Amino acid sequence: TNYTFSISILLSTFQFSPSEHKTRKGLPLEGPGMLNVHLVPHTHDDVGWLKTVDQYFYGDRNDIQHAGVQYILDSVVDQLLKNPDRRFIYVETAFFYRWWKQQTDDMQNTVKQLVNEGRLEFVNGGWCMSDEATTHYSAVIDQMTMGLRFLNDTFGHCGRPRVAWHIDPFGHAREHASMFAQMGYDGFFFGRLDYQDRNRRMVAREQEMLWRASESLTPPMADLFTGILPNGYNPPEGFCWDQSCDDPPIRDDPDLEDYNALVYKTNHIIMTMGSDFQYENANLWYKNLDKLIRYVNQMQSNGSEVNVLYSTPSCYLQELHRANLTWPLKGDDFFPYADSAHDFWTGYFTSRPALKRYERISNSYLQTCKQLEVLGGPISRKGPFGAGDSETLKKAMAVAQHHDAVSGTEKQHVANDYARKLANGWAHCQVLVSNTLSSLSGSSAPRVYCEHLNISVCPLTETSKKVTLHGHTHTLTHTHSHTHTHTHSHTLTLTIPLWFREVKFPSSLFPCFSVSFHIVTLRDFLSSLFCVCLSRYNASDGNNSESIQMSGAYIFRPNTSTPFIISKTAKIETLQEVRQWFSPWVSQVVRLYTDSRALELEWTVGPVPIGDDLGKEVISRLDSSINSSGVFYTDSNGREVLQRRKDYRPTWNLRQSEPIAGNYYPINSRAYIKDDKDQLTVVTDRSQGGGSIQDGSLEIMLHRRLLYDDVRGVGEPLNETSDIYPEGLVVRGRHLLSLSPPATAADTHRPLAQEVVLQPLITFTDGELHPSTRLEFSGLQAVLPPAVHLLTVSQWDQDTVLLRLEHQYQASESKEHSQPVTVNLQKLFSTLDMLGVSEMNLSANQWKDEMTRLDWKAESGTHHTGVTNQLCLLSPLGCVKTADLL
Amino acid sequence: TNYTFSISILLSTFQFSPSEHKTRKGLPLEGPGMLNVHLVPHTHDDVGWLKTVDQYFYGDRNDIQHAGVQYILDSVVDQLLKNPDRRFIYVETAFFYRWWKQQTDDMQNTVKQLVNEGRLEFVNGGWCMSDEATTHYSAVIDQMTMGLRFLNDTFGHCGRPRVAWHIDPFGHAREHASMFAQMGYDGFFFGRLDYQDRNRRMVAREQEMLWRASESLTPPMADLFTGILPNGYNPPEGFCWDQSCDDPPIRDDPDLEDYNALVYKTNHIIMTMGSDFQYENANLWYKNLDKLIRYVNQMQSNGSEVNVLYSTPSCYLQELHRANLTWPLKGDDFFPYADSAHDFWTGYFTSRPALKRYERISNSYLQTCKQLEVLGGPISRKGPFGAGDSETLKKAMAVAQHHDAVSGTEKQHVANDYARKLANGWAHCQVLVSNTLSSLSGSSAPRVYCEHLNISVCPLTETSKKVTLHGHTHTLTHTHSHTHTHTHSHTLTLTIPLWFREVKFPSSLFPCFSVSFHIVTLRDFLSSLFCVCLSRYNASDGNNSESIQMSGAYIFRPNTSTPFIISKTAKIETLQEVRQWFSPWVSQVVRLYTDSRALELEWTVGPVPIGDDLGKEVISRLDSSINSSGVFYTDSNGREVLQRRKDYRPTWNLRQSEPIAGNYYPINSRAYIKDDKDQLTVVTDRSQGGGSIQDGSLEIMLHRRLLYDDVRGVGEPLNETSDIYPEGLVVRGRHLLSLSPPATAADTHRPLAQEVVLQPLITFTDGELHPSTRLEFSGLQAVLPPAVHLLTVSQWDQDTVLLRLEHQYQASESKEHSQPVTVNLQKLFSTLDMLGVSEMNLSANQWKDEMTRLDWKAESGTHHTGVTNQLCLLSPLGCVKTADLL
Repeated sequence: TNYTFSISILLSTFQFSPSEHKTRKGLPLEGPGMLNVHLVPHTHDDVGWLKTVDQYFYGDRNDIQHAGVQYILDSVVDQLLKNPDRRFIYVETAFFYRWWKQQTDDMQNTVKQLVNEGRLEFVNGGWCMSDEATTHYSAVIDQMTMGLRFLNDTFGHCGRPRVAWHIDPFGHAREHASMFAQMGYDGFFFGRLDYQDRNRRMVAREQEMLWRASESLTPPMADLFTGILPNGYNPPEGFCWDQSCDDPPIRDDPDLEDYNALVYKTNHIIMTMGSDFQYENANLWYKNLDKLIRYVNQMQSNGSEVNVLYSTPSCYLQELHRANLTWPLKGDDFFPYADSAHDFWTGYFTSRPALKRYERISNSYLQTCKQLEVLGGPISRKGPFGAGDSETLKKAMAVAQHHDAVSGTEKQHVANDYARKLANGWAHCQVLVSNTLSSLSGSSAPRVYCEHLNISVCPLTETSKKVTLHGHTHTLTHTHSHTHTHTHSHTLTLTIPLWFREVKFPSSLFPCFSVSFHIVTLRDFLSSLFCVCLSRYNASDGNNSESIQMSGAYIFRPNTSTPFIISKTAKIETLQEVRQWFSPWVSQVVRLYTDSRALELEWTVGPVPIGDDLGKEVISRLDSSINSSGVFYTDSNGREVLQRRKDYRPTWNLRQSEPIAGNYYPINSRAYIKDDKDQLTVVTDRSQGGGSIQDGSLEIMLHRRLLYDDVRGVGEPLNETSDIYPEGLVVRGRHLLSLSPPATAADTHRPLAQEVVLQPLITFTDGELHPSTRLEFSGLQAVLPPAVHLLTVSQWDQDTVLLRLEHQYQASESKEHSQPVTVNLQKLFSTLDMLGVSEMNLSANQWKDEMTRLDWKAESGTHHTGVTNQLCLLSPLGCVKTADLL
Repeated sequence: TNYTFSISILLSTFQFSPSEHKTRKGLPLEGPGMLNVHLVPHTHDDVGWLKTVDQYFYGDRNDIQHAGVQYILDSVVDQLLKNPDRRFIYVETAFFYRWWKQQTDDMQNTVKQLVNEGRLEFVNGGWCMSDEATTHYSAVIDQMTMGLRFLNDTFGHCGRPRVAWHIDPFGHAREHASMFAQMGYDGFFFGRLDYQDRNRRMVAREQEMLWRASESLTPPMADLFTGILPNGYNPPEGFCWDQSCDDPPIRDDPDLEDYNALVYKTNHIIMTMGSDFQYENANLWYKNLDKLIRYVNQMQSNGSEVNVLYSTPSCYLQELHRANLTWPLKGDDFFPYADSAHDFWTGYFTSRPALKRYERISNSYLQTCKQLEVLGGPISRKGPFGAGDSETLKKAMAVAQHHDAVSGTEKQHVANDYARKLANGWAHCQVLVSNTLSSLSGSSAPRVYCEHLNISVCPLTETSKKVTLHGHTHTLTHTHSHTHTHTHSHTLTLTIPLWFREVKFPSSLFPCFSVSFHIVTLRDFLSSLFCVCLSRYNASDGNNSESIQMSGAYIFRPNTSTPFIISKTAKIETLQEVRQWFSPWVSQVVRLYTDSRALELEWTVGPVPIGDDLGKEVISRLDSSINSSGVFYTDSNGREVLQRRKDYRPTWNLRQSEPIAGNYYPINSRAYIKDDKDQLTVVTDRSQGGGSIQDGSLEIMLHRRLLYDDVRGVGEPLNETSDIYPEGLVVRGRHLLSLSPPATAADTHRPLAQEVVLQPLITFTDGELHPSTRLEFSGLQAVLPPAVHLLTVSQWDQDTVLLRLEHQYQASESKEHSQPVTVNLQKLFSTLDMLGVSEMNLSANQWKDEMTRLDWKAESGTHHTGVTNQLCLLSPLGCVKTADLL
């Protein structure tokens, strides 16, 4: 079954004659026994990068980059209509949705027809193609749900993507694969992986595999067939016919030379015919692809065994499945990503720390907003404070998940635009929240939202003599009813109505209010650490004999492997907290709150000085006596935790070329080191990069200020300033440290991380409230079991609510909580009756009992019980249901 | 009637909704009393420039310039079909013809429908948009005829262009305007003219005029309404929505600011919405133009008096005509063209002298070939020497007339391609010529074509002991029959059959054969000139305090105004000719042939040395005692002669900023100076630039070798080398000098110039011919009257021949010949009977008696008898015949 055909074709002079084209239909669409080359016309449309998402849609600021998505979709639909053989895939629903709204009924019907016939196929289908290193799973699920819902509502089952398609993200998270599996995808394709990993896989023919993406879910629940695309996501050299390319059109002697199919297992190969924002003038592509297909297939009559066809990823995937082979198993993830020896894409784990934090608290705010929309009902959207909605923030958050958004790898003006969009979403939510709180509390006193509490700025509290504070949490995980059973890491997505309650928030969480510290305990804690200190790397400026790679938005490359201690002795002031000044631009406050099991390190970094012409990357390093033996742990998208080992990759024999950057991994919510006795866990308040360079040590990068571009396209140095910070951005954040025996560590860091991810929303009212004001409210009848986390409560349509409950413990990490748990949905809500419950897949675009996925055989020989497929067939045309296949 | 409206519009946020678009039909298509803005979507497709014509058609070598004409036409037709209001004009038939051949019947019918409805309109319609400075009128007529014939044959009267459209050529020749008038065009628009001229015309509202383009033809025969486009041929700033532009799409607050209509006379203005190779993705343009029109016209309900509409040049022209105004008269031409004080586009008059010569002799060869095709009949195209044709050379010559072809302003590889195309045309013609001569002479001895006689290279004559030489002339102007009357400069275009004869060529014209000289006469001639010497300018390299303009392919700018004498004393050798060596790279041979009234100067220049890092522009300067008083004369496209005056322009008060380059004019065939007693005329063998800088002096530029690009787009220095001339191109050419009393000078230079333009074709056969071989043949019964020139004899279709006879004398230049003359067509041909004759317009795309043109009133008040128009109306849609209008 190892197909060893290698294409070597010389196209001679040939003029395309449309009349001859009519004979094309007689040729086989797919040649059995032949090498089948699946040409997949596609465009990769970043939901913001060098331009904002709006600029990309309209084609504005083409001086920055020529790209206009509205025209791409116009053009592709036109061209698909010209030849029924032509196919196209579309990926980013944020753009498609916008285009769709502007079309006439006629055009919408035409597009529906194209989708029904399989000529236009949606792949991936989320609102954006999310980043995998710096996103939190809850936000990813939300953005996927929004995109897939639009496709479902608009096109029905033929619009449901069967293939996940992450051709551009810079490394791949296991949790993403797990989510895709739970969303019902049959396969996953991507373009970027470590160059050493790719080389080994090409030799071993392991570019296709079965990714077992969860340690907790029973296979094949989180198994995902995964394929690596042959050329990133670009066409083979010399075959780019977009308006943005310079390759010669098919006219005279182009060479299709030695396209090597040896590195794949079947007699099918895929060619991604397209790239960034291509197909704005689809005629150029299709006219030449028509000719290529016709000419190459004509040579079959002279004995050629190459068959070229228009195809889609799902059609290609189906052929791989039909080959009935066994595939290697993959258990770890694809981080970190290096495209060359000194080019580790580990900088973006931390790039733009302020944006990363803003995205994270916006997620928290959105969850509150959505819940209060459910609790408030129609009055939430139109009430005493005007018209509010959650939709604006939903979309802003969905866009922010893009792999050049929260990743921090966009241009500065685009980063500003993401932040503006989030702020606009907040404003819309604030009206909604005020309306609902007014309704629930019986008080229409205006609510004040102090958005700068992180720097202790709130005009109301500074000027008013008496203010009332309200805390609104949304993760009420402590109720006691039990009827539904969850397994580890399992998420239950339900459409269901429910109520919610407002709780009085423990004042101890608000340092702008009086708090008390256990100073002794704090000192005890600190004494267990050798060093809690802030250091920095100087960034490589490319003046290095080994490689000219600079540190930039994507890439982390320190110019030496030893961090510079910013100050050997911090100036320390011990009040009710410990304040450390390492330098005028690096300081830290250490706190231990009453009843808290975690130590808080509040770091403040900036403006990072650049007077010495050196970019700087500031880290917090925790040195301990823990005997970690080169092993450490980081989470994947805030959910399951993966083991990491210094200078080691589970799937290939690593040649380490960057001792620091090559040992960095994304940290979305937590990292830890442990030995038999102790586990030191750090919970972060945003996505950051980090690693364990020395035994017993954990370092986490806090802030980056760089003077060079790293030549990966963004074209400007990551050198953040703003009107408020003209000298350089100042960033503040928190690390929560917990020190526990390993066996019980998860019992602390699981709820702790959820608390940080989903922070309470604080509002203020001026003066005292009217005595009749209702001060406490909960939508839940009782606390949920500790293992159960309320992930989503959101209005679905007028009569339906989307509910997601998840088991938040990974298998074996907690003796107490890593156990099946049951929730009684009927008794979940305090004020709402459930009229009916339907279970869905994770992305809520399919009934759970209708979710059938292709089965794949792993090389170990395990064969899971099969399900039939629902893929689009190549012939006859069309999106065909299972029934038609059997 | 002076419309003083000035548009100042701010477009505010607005989203295009297709459903609203439907209400658009209700709006007025044209607003009476309003300022009507005619948006003319167009593309400017160079028939070769930075890329070859083939590369432009297919979109090959997009790394040089992104341009693919096949896609432009695909895309425009698609987009026109989407909205019946949309219009497009197409200009270059060389490209359209090629695209048309590749279309299906369905598509061809669709396009015919668009043409019939006036949605797609052809303007200009020649094979290319010819250069006006360096082309010969005979070749221009040929290329126009070829393009217009295709349109006529394909689309009928709706495909006949009404408007000439020379938006890019670098200055405008009066003879071109005369030809356009005689071809039936109603108006002419162009984009480039001297910056001082434009400024004056804007102030005086004289950007539209009536060009009286002949001193010989009775008005309005050569009158042409001429309009200057407001922005070259580009859209207004900020309104370029092509894929190649960066202007923002209509989305948010674009400004349409102060577009000034004050500089035009009517309440109609034209906006050229397009540019070089634009509309490859026409959707971008039309989508935004749709929005612009809808939005601006919507404001009429708020009192706006601006009406924007899709239009075409002929619709715009019709509105100007309806305004019934009087227009200023123009009698001179638009040379030289300067776009700034030190930027005179007078270099290209001479650039690429070798290509210019090759084009000129190719024209001569083509005329011979076409005549012999007529004489030989079908055997000419398929005979003893194989398959031959004139079509290949016709097309190569038509393409060579393009304003970046014979002009010498293309890239080197493109110049090579033009030459290759011509050579290929020659090869096809040689087979045809051999076939015909075999048939006419009764000898099938192989004909040998020695194409390098100009450098005395011919392998046959060098190796064979005995060769026979055959000369084949084609301008048999000396017959005596008279029945048809011609007026001065009038050309009669007929479709007619005829025969032709072969003549034995006078051996004295071939210096590779024995010739005798009148040395005494030659010395007498030379003694009347102070100096016949070769000099050079050093080219400006931009290091000049006044302006950084460099000399380049387009622009001539010497770095001082005094030419460098290459050598004060030439080394002279007097054999049977005078040989002068000015330097190793500049020499000249002076000859006076028996019976010739002209002195021949054969100059050889090159390789021009550049070791001093200075570009050089070599001139031949003739100093005489003629008292020319600052006046000199140059021809226009080889036909009528215009008076020039140093540092002076007839239509504005010139501020001269370049004393040399600003006094250069194109010389296509001759230039002269005179006083009461003497006229010194120089007949050139190719297009060159020149002027009279000192009284009594004529200087003509021979060769240019430059080290800098002049920043007008071609992007490479004019620094010609080749495999044969790796050290720099060597160019050889001839000037024929005649010294006569002014009253009879034309009697010499008219036939002399025709002899140089249309040289005999020389062929050789090895050995002696069989005695039965017919050595002489003529297709004409007798010589034509001296004033009549046989311009065209060409097979039209199977039974028809195209014949053009012209009166070759300008009014008043010859007492003897500037008189009406009559030719008896019935007795013209020696071997062919004429079955019928039909007179046509100059371009042979309309019967002469059906040629009706718009009448225009000149400001002098003269009003010529009117004719009705046949323009495309705006409403109702469509290309409407006169009958429908009345």
